[in-house]
Amino acid sequence: MYALAIHGGAGPLPVADPAGARATALSAGLSAALRAGERVLQADGSALDAVQAAVTVLEDDALFNAGRGAVLTLDATAELDASLMEGTTLRAGAVALVRRTKNPIRLARYLLEHSPHVFVAGEAADRLAAVAGSERVENDYFITPYRLEQLQAFRRCRGAGGMGETTGVSEATGVGEATGVGDARGMGDTGAEGTVGAVARDRHGHLAAATSTGGTTGKVPGRIGDSPVIGAGTYADDQACAVSMTGHGEWFLRTVQAYDIAARVRYGREPLARAVAAAFERLTHLQARGGLIAVDTAGTIVMPYNSAGMLRAAVREGGEATIEVR
Amino acid sequence: MYALAIHGGAGPLPVADPAGARATALSAGLSAALRAGERVLQADGSALDAVQAAVTVLEDDALFNAGRGAVLTLDATAELDASLMEGTTLRAGAVALVRRTKNPIRLARYLLEHSPHVFVAGEAADRLAAVAGSERVENDYFITPYRLEQLQAFRRCRGAGGMGETTGVSEATGVGEATGVGDARGMGDTGAEGTVGAVARDRHGHLAAATSTGGTTGKVPGRIGDSPVIGAGTYADDQACAVSMTGHGEWFLRTVQAYDIAARVRYGREPLARAVAAAFERLTHLQARGGLIAVDTAGTIVMPYNSAGMLRAAVREGGEATIEVR
Repeated sequence: MYALAIHGGAGPLPVADPAGARATALSAGLSAALRAGERVLQADGSALDAVQAAVTVLEDDALFNAGRGAVLTLDATAELDASLMEGTTLRAGAVALVRRTKNPIRLARYLLEHSPHVFVAGEAADRLAAVAGSERVENDYFITPYRLEQLQAFRRCRGAGGMGETTGVSEATGVGEATGVGDARGMGDTGAEGTVGAVARDRHGHLAAATSTGGTTGKVPGRIGDSPVIGAGTYADDQACAVSMTGHGEWFLRTVQAYDIAARVRYGREPLARAVAAAFERLTHLQARGGLIAVDTAGTIVMPYNSAGMLRAAVREGGEATIEVR
Repeated sequence: MYALAIHGGAGPLPVADPAGARATALSAGLSAALRAGERVLQADGSALDAVQAAVTVLEDDALFNAGRGAVLTLDATAELDASLMEGTTLRAGAVALVRRTKNPIRLARYLLEHSPHVFVAGEAADRLAAVAGSERVENDYFITPYRLEQLQAFRRCRGAGGMGETTGVSEATGVGEATGVGDARGMGDTGAEGTVGAVARDRHGHLAAATSTGGTTGKVPGRIGDSPVIGAGTYADDQACAVSMTGHGEWFLRTVQAYDIAARVRYGREPLARAVAAAFERLTHLQARGGLIAVDTAGTIVMPYNSAGMLRAAVREGGEATIEVR
């Protein structure tokens, strides 16, 4: 029995009209990613291959905030983060601040398999593209008119002080804005769909998780969110569960959120659904918003969120696929 | 009642002659760092200020692998990582791939206090130095003859194949060596003392942790280890404990080791000493080597390691300071 879940980000209601063209396109994108992952699992493939296949489709789809179509930094560049992990061996790979590699998740997979290093960032990560078999592209490849518009809206909003107070010191660097800005930004109030991710349980009972993102609109170049951080945005352990997060990355870094779920299962001996419910109670208390997808070795899938909506889809062997764009 | 522990790295026996000049100098360095942290706690200061003060002294001491005297990348540059966290609020700050900032831990503190972002890497982090009140230096400032010698020894060793097999593909990038290389490297077999760190419990019952490092000798530029990753190398939660790790960073990233200890305490309801013992049993099973320092709200200090030695020191209010360089 296999199980697979994917997400295309959590945030404020991502689709204004659930019957409109945008909703239809997002549904089609989620459906294609789910099918790509499911094909791997149907062919007795590994959970690791399945989550990578699903995330690759979402990276290539310009509608989602990962790979092509990622949100942009303050400098109007795309800086991409991704990670993936295998629950059997605890092998993991992560990349951050990638600017010239078509599929960051493929770089992360390369590190997982072939490198003594788990986590590589910046130009060094981009230089890996050739050996990792990932196509090298110019940064322009990632940039879409829709994301440029979002960045302009973000800048206008910031200029008008609508995103929270900023200090003179902060203005000089762009990194030091008051926390209120980050809160708004982290949840994509400028209209960004969030991070993408996938979790899977294969027929052999093994788990894997993968996450990929462009981060948050108007982020400072050099900012690393939760997505490439093993434990924060991504975690997989056959003894517990596989988790991929989306939402308020800075909070998920502080709560080590993906591993927190696994630890509640492993050390607290809670079933996955109860572990996740307890974690969300705490996140809501901390005013951290977002969502996650998780699967355990029994094939239980949970897809909760405390934001207004989350793009998500799931399928279990022999069952119907579900796709939600609200 | 306050409690403070610091480490100067775990690895193969770091001091050949425990009565020699090097041991004396390392002892003096640990002692100065411990005193700097203790002065803060004696004056009713915060655990966060105490761990930062202790780590700053170790960053400035050229004997330790953090700040000045850090180990060098394959390109013979210093690339520094640091993080710190406050257990009361879960606020955290982390920087990676810093090349021009005298005290990376001060940058991390700046992010903790003033930025919506937790984690910033590369040039963007260096650009923060001015607003963070941290002195900007040339990369040469960090480089000592001792670390250049270590790098040359590492290169000779690698050239002779002594560090494990490498593939043709990997050679092209330097990132993809077989895992055996990383294992040897991660434990500083080239003679590097490890990472530095501090954990504290202040008189108000609050916890904090800080970690700073140059990483591993001959690392690929762009590699990020566990030290700047909240949850892996550093964690603090007043509901559990404060932890700073040193040793095999890639494994600590996979096991989310600092937070794993906190989660065993928090969800497994184990006392700190038992949680740490269970964690080390697992690490030893995984062939991951290193050490940690941890403190809980009762002021219990633990400083275990499964490597040959760990530079460490600790003090509790009203007690004698202990300093170990073996």
